[in-house]
Amino acid sequence: MPTLILLRHGQSQWNLEDRFTGWVDVDLTAEGEAQAKKGGELIKAAGIAIDKVFTSVLTRAIRTSWLALAAAGQAFVPEIKDWRLNERHYGGLTGLNKTETAAKHGADQVKVWRRSYDIPPPELAPGGEFDFSKDRRYAGLTLPTTESLKTTLVRVQPYWDAEIAPCLTAGETLLVAAHGNSLRAIVKLLFALSDEAIIDVEIPTGNPLVIELDSSLKPTAARYLDADRATKLPAI
Amino acid sequence: MPTLILLRHGQSQWNLEDRFTGWVDVDLTAEGEAQAKKGGELIKAAGIAIDKVFTSVLTRAIRTSWLALAAAGQAFVPEIKDWRLNERHYGGLTGLNKTETAAKHGADQVKVWRRSYDIPPPELAPGGEFDFSKDRRYAGLTLPTTESLKTTLVRVQPYWDAEIAPCLTAGETLLVAAHGNSLRAIVKLLFALSDEAIIDVEIPTGNPLVIELDSSLKPTAARYLDADRATKLPAI
Repeated sequence: MPTLILLRHGQSQWNLEDRFTGWVDVDLTAEGEAQAKKGGELIKAAGIAIDKVFTSVLTRAIRTSWLALAAAGQAFVPEIKDWRLNERHYGGLTGLNKTETAAKHGADQVKVWRRSYDIPPPELAPGGEFDFSKDRRYAGLTLPTTESLKTTLVRVQPYWDAEIAPCLTAGETLLVAAHGNSLRAIVKLLFALSDEAIIDVEIPTGNPLVIELDSSLKPTAARYLDADRATKLPAI
Repeated sequence: MPTLILLRHGQSQWNLEDRFTGWVDVDLTAEGEAQAKKGGELIKAAGIAIDKVFTSVLTRAIRTSWLALAAAGQAFVPEIKDWRLNERHYGGLTGLNKTETAAKHGADQVKVWRRSYDIPPPELAPGGEFDFSKDRRYAGLTLPTTESLKTTLVRVQPYWDAEIAPCLTAGETLLVAAHGNSLRAIVKLLFALSDEAIIDVEIPTGNPLVIELDSSLKPTAARYLDADRATKLPAI
């Protein structure tokens, strides 16, 4: 039976500083490391044997997968890193403090940028500190300059279809260690949620979400391994 | 220009306890973690951009690569894990204390098992604590029951030829994070050393050995990044 574990990275330094992060390669805090390790211990306690791991190319998600795999005693599992699992690109908001941005643009506008399905923030100006086009991990790619959750899903979906779904169809158990919005894109696809319904889905950090699937990759069961830190799951 | 970095894993718990380890999946000590991190810092300070990482399926080598990559700021680099880079299989000596084994079999016999090129220790008895045939990371493989350095090289070489050498021929910079004997097998191949000459090559733990190669993969230069902990290198 195909099984998918979604794991959102633990707290990062910019989560702590309340800044829009997106594609900036901010590392985990000590608390974030502890969350990832706890996630791995829960996977081990649940007796889940992972066949393959998918992560983004951002350090906070990769290190979350490493800490979880080590804690689960499964460091040897193959791991694939791909930019299409990156966090949503926050465009011109990248690096800004969320409270200061609300003071400048109004809390309502910031809420629209943060919580609407299809309205992206302003584009990132090229050539600045957060222009990722010269980063060698993105060599040869045409990069977004801003993303909504909708356009995040547009680049997650082909990767899901081509790389992740075939492993599940083959019956594998996968761990996807990624970000709030790339994971929400996957949840929207898997549970066939509306544009409105996905907005209310919040995935807690470091809490493995185990989704069991049938052979056509429809969810048959879903649970968080840390029940005390669970959020509401979509209906099955 | 192809560049190869060989990195021997940092101190493990059984290095500390002076036990024959081989394929037992013993983790790094805190000291071993610090060595791996230092190795990554040296790679960063040398300005080396890694294209791909190869490791064994043993936790101490994998975690060495993870700690080094994180310290080098290159967590996003693709990583491939394969059993053919495992440490030499220590057969029936696996798990035994080295001093006790010398008391039992004689120091000369233990020296032959440890330091000869082609004499393997006694075979591992099947079904015991250290029988790896039911470990899922080796599913479908016919596993050795003991290995000499020679037979270690016999399984390293096809992997080198098929997977590692083509990346170097393509001009990549590779990190191979592995074990004393799988790395000695690679050094023997690269430097075309005799069966006698390889016996005297000792690769220090956590000290990146950077080997520059020409287009036919002949070494043109080699240096340890931590010069204070360097050992003698084969002549070029």
